[in-house]
Amino acid sequence: MPDVALNFSRPEYATRLTRVHDAMSAQGLDSLIVTDPSNIAWLTGYDGWSFYVHQCAIIPLGEEPLWYGRSQDANGARLTVYMDENRIIGYPDEYVQSTERHPMDLLSQILTDRGWATGNIGVELENYYFTAAAYLSLQKHLPNASLRDATALVNWQRAVKSETELEYMRIGGRIVENMHARIVEKAEPGMRKSDLVAEIYDAGIRGTDEHGGDYPAIVPLLPSGADASAPHMTWDDKPLQRGEGTFFEIAGCYKRYHCPLSRTLFLGKPTDTFLDAEKAVLEGMDAGLEAARSGNTCEDISSAFFATLKRHGIVKDNRAGYPIGLSYPPDWGERTMSLRSGDKTVLQENMTFHFMTGLWLEDWGMEITESIIIKDNGPELLASVPRKLTIKD
Amino acid sequence: MPDVALNFSRPEYATRLTRVHDAMSAQGLDSLIVTDPSNIAWLTGYDGWSFYVHQCAIIPLGEEPLWYGRSQDANGARLTVYMDENRIIGYPDEYVQSTERHPMDLLSQILTDRGWATGNIGVELENYYFTAAAYLSLQKHLPNASLRDATALVNWQRAVKSETELEYMRIGGRIVENMHARIVEKAEPGMRKSDLVAEIYDAGIRGTDEHGGDYPAIVPLLPSGADASAPHMTWDDKPLQRGEGTFFEIAGCYKRYHCPLSRTLFLGKPTDTFLDAEKAVLEGMDAGLEAARSGNTCEDISSAFFATLKRHGIVKDNRAGYPIGLSYPPDWGERTMSLRSGDKTVLQENMTFHFMTGLWLEDWGMEITESIIIKDNGPELLASVPRKLTIKD
Repeated sequence: MPDVALNFSRPEYATRLTRVHDAMSAQGLDSLIVTDPSNIAWLTGYDGWSFYVHQCAIIPLGEEPLWYGRSQDANGARLTVYMDENRIIGYPDEYVQSTERHPMDLLSQILTDRGWATGNIGVELENYYFTAAAYLSLQKHLPNASLRDATALVNWQRAVKSETELEYMRIGGRIVENMHARIVEKAEPGMRKSDLVAEIYDAGIRGTDEHGGDYPAIVPLLPSGADASAPHMTWDDKPLQRGEGTFFEIAGCYKRYHCPLSRTLFLGKPTDTFLDAEKAVLEGMDAGLEAARSGNTCEDISSAFFATLKRHGIVKDNRAGYPIGLSYPPDWGERTMSLRSGDKTVLQENMTFHFMTGLWLEDWGMEITESIIIKDNGPELLASVPRKLTIKD
Repeated sequence: MPDVALNFSRPEYATRLTRVHDAMSAQGLDSLIVTDPSNIAWLTGYDGWSFYVHQCAIIPLGEEPLWYGRSQDANGARLTVYMDENRIIGYPDEYVQSTERHPMDLLSQILTDRGWATGNIGVELENYYFTAAAYLSLQKHLPNASLRDATALVNWQRAVKSETELEYMRIGGRIVENMHARIVEKAEPGMRKSDLVAEIYDAGIRGTDEHGGDYPAIVPLLPSGADASAPHMTWDDKPLQRGEGTFFEIAGCYKRYHCPLSRTLFLGKPTDTFLDAEKAVLEGMDAGLEAARSGNTCEDISSAFFATLKRHGIVKDNRAGYPIGLSYPPDWGERTMSLRSGDKTVLQENMTFHFMTGLWLEDWGMEITESIIIKDNGPELLASVPRKLTIKD
């Protein structure tokens, strides 16, 4: 057995597990099947790009997790999780992308053999990696169990970050600072957008002198001009144009912990549209950040931001942010809270958010955002990048 | 309306749609809900990193697709799909990651309003982006419809590639050649692995002089030494060591079309284990490639490969490849055929595969692979990278 270099102390994993056991008890669950790769990693330490096949962590109430996945990935579990070998279970390769047999068929058998096939079993109904077919397999093969929706049960336990988690996210902040500095240094009219993306990746993965970067859960998003009306465009190999704004939605990542941060670059003399939007957004961000403190609610942040925008005549009809931390593709958000009207979740110290203040309007778009740690007296910024429209004329 | 620069001709999209309509007829489907982002892109042209929220293409039998997704992403649909504005439907942001309302609730209403809420509706039960919750929502809100499993219905239509698709994949081949050349040039003992990954990304996204690279659906996988027993480990910032083998499972990507290709680098003098494995794998690949021609079956390729390995005393208990082409994370495979025993799918000209001949054994691993186009008289290799264990001593 090789030594496992865990990213967190054993007591930290134990604390996490206790939180999850408590949440399971509160919901009357006897066991929990965790399929979200971020939740699996947070609970067990498992890390690998194997989530394109079925895998999960099984959490019997009061017990340590079991890792269940493809046999060849069980080797990766042995290298990354804290549990003993007897809590790592691989399924044969004939279950991979087969139309005849499903990995969850076999899992039901395993649960049955171990006496966990009765009672209330929590499953993450709303997760990318828990397909409808996985659900139907469990439903069919676990006739004596009651499958209960436990979507986001684990995600909610992740909301308040530990000191080590915050440390990793601050390193993500140093990395995203370097990424934005590289953009400002290199971007110029005529440069192929793909070449600029190569620079962004180079800066993000190289990281800092002390810490190499990890892959963010979302690739760089950097639409220009009218394309920036669409928030999730990636890139092409067309040249950057003078007279266009381009926003850069990117994240620094370290040991799977994210610091997203967006800035907008205008090549040439910015139009009044951009300058007016910059003024409104910066003023709105000041108001939102002022509200980002323990005891306030999620909607306090968005309401302060939206009210300022509205005074400037701008209506934003989508949420103004979401919690961040450990994540795997396709999303670096935690999918629990949202900074929007109606979300009355009370902010607690060491919750972390991407304050996503992007505007995507008829034929242009602009993003100037911050990632923050909630503190009692106002937020700590995870990264320090000049908060303004970047202009290269 | 901005002009839409489609990656394929309108007749090519029409041909694809006809194939899907025909497959729907054959399965008795009245409409089809397509959630796999690769299938959506192949059918409509849609491109964007928005699959972390619910979206789909709706295909009524005999009609053009409709795009359905988040309102802010409808802007991206307007920039990338060939259908008219009236076939692009955005849902309000309050449906995003809400515990009270699901985007599929609203979709059911839309289907009902348009008279598509009866008959047999195909859904992709086994897809990352069709969650159990999405299925349960449709089941609840479409009481007069019969939901039928249409997993991989569209994927199968994608198996035989068009000339333009092959052209994009050959460009992916040029890109992955550059990526491997960069590895050989830059890797050396003491280099942080993350710095080498930065080089790989730089080469892959910079692409060629004529064509910038796109993001592959899987990040670079490059475990070293004993870690290489696990096929899906990503990277850290530890230095490369003399005396260790590292495999590089990477892909060149152009307009979302992939050319995966793996090679293994040994820093120092390779052990007999590696040299023996190299000999077995190369001989097995020759046998497998010889079998990779129209009229043979998927298992003919894997059987030829496995038989050679076995003669060398190596047992590989996982599949030897899968179809490739257009893809989005988390998988660059097409999830239809597998190169393994029992898969008797007949190979057709212009099918494309990653011949995945990797070995992941007790405490080491090696990958030397090829991506191929099936031709009548044997395969065309998508990339030309010296097929051998790379040694830097």
